[in-house]
Amino acid sequence: MGYALHGGDIYHGKIRDDFSVNVNPLGLPPGVRQVLRESVEGWSRYPDPECGRLIRRLADYHGTSKERIVCGNGAADLIYRLAYQARPKRALVLAPSFSEYERALMSVGCRVRHFSLREEKRFQVDAEALAGFLEEGEWLFLCNPNNPTGLAVPKSQVELLAEACHKKGGLLVLDECFCEFLDRPEDYSFMERIWEYPQVVILRAFTKSYAMAGLRLGYMVCGDLVLAGRLRLTGQPWSVSLPAQEAGVAALEEKDFLKKTKRLVKTEREWMLERLAGLGFLVFPSQVNYLLFKDEGEEYHGNLWERLRERRILIRDCSNFLGLEPGEGLGRIRYYRIGLQRREKNEKLLEALSMIMKDS
Amino acid sequence: MGYALHGGDIYHGKIRDDFSVNVNPLGLPPGVRQVLRESVEGWSRYPDPECGRLIRRLADYHGTSKERIVCGNGAADLIYRLAYQARPKRALVLAPSFSEYERALMSVGCRVRHFSLREEKRFQVDAEALAGFLEEGEWLFLCNPNNPTGLAVPKSQVELLAEACHKKGGLLVLDECFCEFLDRPEDYSFMERIWEYPQVVILRAFTKSYAMAGLRLGYMVCGDLVLAGRLRLTGQPWSVSLPAQEAGVAALEEKDFLKKTKRLVKTEREWMLERLAGLGFLVFPSQVNYLLFKDEGEEYHGNLWERLRERRILIRDCSNFLGLEPGEGLGRIRYYRIGLQRREKNEKLLEALSMIMKDS
Repeated sequence: MGYALHGGDIYHGKIRDDFSVNVNPLGLPPGVRQVLRESVEGWSRYPDPECGRLIRRLADYHGTSKERIVCGNGAADLIYRLAYQARPKRALVLAPSFSEYERALMSVGCRVRHFSLREEKRFQVDAEALAGFLEEGEWLFLCNPNNPTGLAVPKSQVELLAEACHKKGGLLVLDECFCEFLDRPEDYSFMERIWEYPQVVILRAFTKSYAMAGLRLGYMVCGDLVLAGRLRLTGQPWSVSLPAQEAGVAALEEKDFLKKTKRLVKTEREWMLERLAGLGFLVFPSQVNYLLFKDEGEEYHGNLWERLRERRILIRDCSNFLGLEPGEGLGRIRYYRIGLQRREKNEKLLEALSMIMKDS
Repeated sequence: MGYALHGGDIYHGKIRDDFSVNVNPLGLPPGVRQVLRESVEGWSRYPDPECGRLIRRLADYHGTSKERIVCGNGAADLIYRLAYQARPKRALVLAPSFSEYERALMSVGCRVRHFSLREEKRFQVDAEALAGFLEEGEWLFLCNPNNPTGLAVPKSQVELLAEACHKKGGLLVLDECFCEFLDRPEDYSFMERIWEYPQVVILRAFTKSYAMAGLRLGYMVCGDLVLAGRLRLTGQPWSVSLPAQEAGVAALEEKDFLKKTKRLVKTEREWMLERLAGLGFLVFPSQVNYLLFKDEGEEYHGNLWERLRERRILIRDCSNFLGLEPGEGLGRIRYYRIGLQRREKNEKLLEALSMIMKDS
């Protein structure tokens, strides 16, 4: 049906270990699991359309006002609601980046331009060049940290982009869904500045940070209160399920979970980067819970996605990311993304990869 | 924030007994609860965007092909996706009826006309008159059985409307969300005829029949395979959460649950109708799990919604349904809807109502 666009497709064929998604390797926080198990019976009730309790907690958590926050059925829901509500005419997205921005924009007839990240710069975003590239009235979608590349733009540079969007009369959509995986999110997130910038919206998700991909919960924090009000009324009243609302409230109680996550992710990232490089891959620097790497060796190892899949391991083949298409010819270059897992799982992946490399 | 549009608002003020919604009074089926409790840990995975397993079960259940079925985050999600996808120019809806059709249509700039159901006919839909009223290119939304009135249009009459939509080049959107509460759904549902009518879509929900309001799960069965394909690709890929998909599969295994529901609903409907009439209300005939009644006595009893709320009981004040607005003056008429519950709860409502009637 045309959805093999993303990672996480464990529904076709038997997969034992999934590295294709980039959600928290710790899984759902224990407190969230417990709340969910205990709440099942109540799910015959309608969810609160206003997500009142959850929004109050989020406002406390971010030190912002309730009126700025809009909850959605995952961050992706909010990307579409924003597109449907505002129907932008022109937008600029990074390449490579998360592809749903472009899908949502195209669905409302928006003309989309791309700003190519350069491999020789390790896909780091050059904020000044990006600001200069922005045209009149154009929206800018910035995934920060960027997916699938893994680097983040410091908040001083984000400010530059916010100013550019202000000047050009566009909107800056800042997707901070992977922000909580950074060592120091406070150096990158624009959250504390949002109230000064009506032309900025920040997107966040429980999906990634709290491993709630199946539950679907994201939220938007809007610089413009009027936009927040409109988004809240776009689409059906009950977009956020009761399990998602309850899980979200419980997740915010888990004070140490994100700290523990960061420690794990940092250790595994460094360990894995070294090992993947040792196998001959070009691994791109990452600040978060996933690694982008490139198979460019002299020998051709075939499609690693396919070859790992035979071993019931799933990774993210990046060939449908704009800017990461495979090269031509026999020794064609391919890019892959892996979501970091716990050590024992990561070891399994490395083992499988090194066997494949030896085989070829 | 403007969502007190519907029933089920148990989030503002303390409510003990909620009669304002019309979901299954039995609550979630026991098998569904069990599956949910056992699945919690797995909800860190992404849901299957294709809802493959659920759609296969639904296709079996309805004896229709998988390709016709589109799942959504509740039936309401599908109403909006349909509107966003097809952007109809003109549509006809019943008055009174479920208000989200009109909200969704208005959000894409559709011109909406109303077909008024007549109280002296007990709000029964006159299909012939409705077919005659339909204009060129106009879509028709038929809630069957209708909400909040409770009567259903037999399938022979639905056929007449499907033919009319065909002739006029519109689409018939048949909301059969309450169909499973009918004694004999097979006399009213258009499901078995859907393959003959590309200009018909049928909307169904687990929300009501299986009390999954908090979980959000609905589906659409389309006469037109092309439309089904388009709807599937409208909006985000992961609109149906994993808990919802798992609960849906489990619900379809519950062979006796709907039979048990119908027995309960029928008994309570007859019992309640008589008692409400005994208190002096005009109760409209219903074939499903809710009753519409009117307070038109010589004495004015105030706003029953308010007075019951003081006793922590919630009913549905129907004054925001088009065609059920309260009358003018002191002795103003008001309409209310109650979702039938189990006997002991229904007794509580009656007790509270009769005390209020005596007081005034």
